[in-house]
Amino acid sequence: MATEKTLDDLFLETLKDIYYAEKQLVKTLPKMAKAAQDQKLADGFLMHAEETEGHVERLEQIFELLGKPARGKTCDAILGIVEEGKSIMEDFKDTIALDAGLVAAGQAAEHYEIARYGALRTWADQLGLKEAVKLLDQTLAEEKAADHKLTELALSQENIKAAA
Amino acid sequence: MATEKTLDDLFLETLKDIYYAEKQLVKTLPKMAKAAQDQKLADGFLMHAEETEGHVERLEQIFELLGKPARGKTCDAILGIVEEGKSIMEDFKDTIALDAGLVAAGQAAEHYEIARYGALRTWADQLGLKEAVKLLDQTLAEEKAADHKLTELALSQENIKAAA
Repeated sequence: MATEKTLDDLFLETLKDIYYAEKQLVKTLPKMAKAAQDQKLADGFLMHAEETEGHVERLEQIFELLGKPARGKTCDAILGIVEEGKSIMEDFKDTIALDAGLVAAGQAAEHYEIARYGALRTWADQLGLKEAVKLLDQTLAEEKAADHKLTELALSQENIKAAA
Repeated sequence: MATEKTLDDLFLETLKDIYYAEKQLVKTLPKMAKAAQDQKLADGFLMHAEETEGHVERLEQIFELLGKPARGKTCDAILGIVEEGKSIMEDFKDTIALDAGLVAAGQAAEHYEIARYGALRTWADQLGLKEAVKLLDQTLAEEKAADHKLTELALSQENIKAAA
């Protein structure tokens, strides 16, 4: 009989899921920066692309702490979110609503990550993985900050003018 | 030459996206309730399934305000999120980590909705759609409350004991 799955297994499966997701975003964020019309938005995407590379490294540190190889597992959710972002870039190319759509696409990705890192952080704490909690907290704070910056951009005067 | 797309178009496209997503969740939440081991978690999913039917109705009111037929558009993101939830239900069936996985799946869905309703609410305001802002605010508050309840369940003593 197979050993029953535990919270350790759920933690590892979810780690693989977000590892795959972060790697997708490392590739996607520079494309969003290139598409953005507003310079601040483009800079924000590029800065977050760099941060995202740091998130990948932190995940690799957690795999190492667990004594497991760093391996991703196809994450259908992030593929769907990235696909919707691509549709925005195509359907709203050269229009005044493009940047608003890019901000929303970025926020969908941030919120997916906030949900996943929040769960991982809770489980790491319950499993007594103190070093992992610290690493996950750092990334979670950066994802929340990135989401707030996008909200500010969405609400900013420039954006309203562009949308009017 | 085709008319250039505007923020009105982005608003309508995103409305169709979340309308499709909510309808998926109306079908999925009762399945998650049935799978849940903890009664509080099962009750929470069922209560939110009812709320979700209300969200569908509010979206239909917004379509009506715009003079457009209420129609969904396939939302790859929610399909991915639902697919990951199904994997949890299968892979962790009858294990002590099942409920923790269901909570996380629920939170991924909530966060997707929070991102989408947040964007729609900002755009409705910028487009001067006061009645839509009110309806979107109501749903956004309920999605955030649902996410908080799931966080509480994830952190609760019972859950830690179940996971230990």
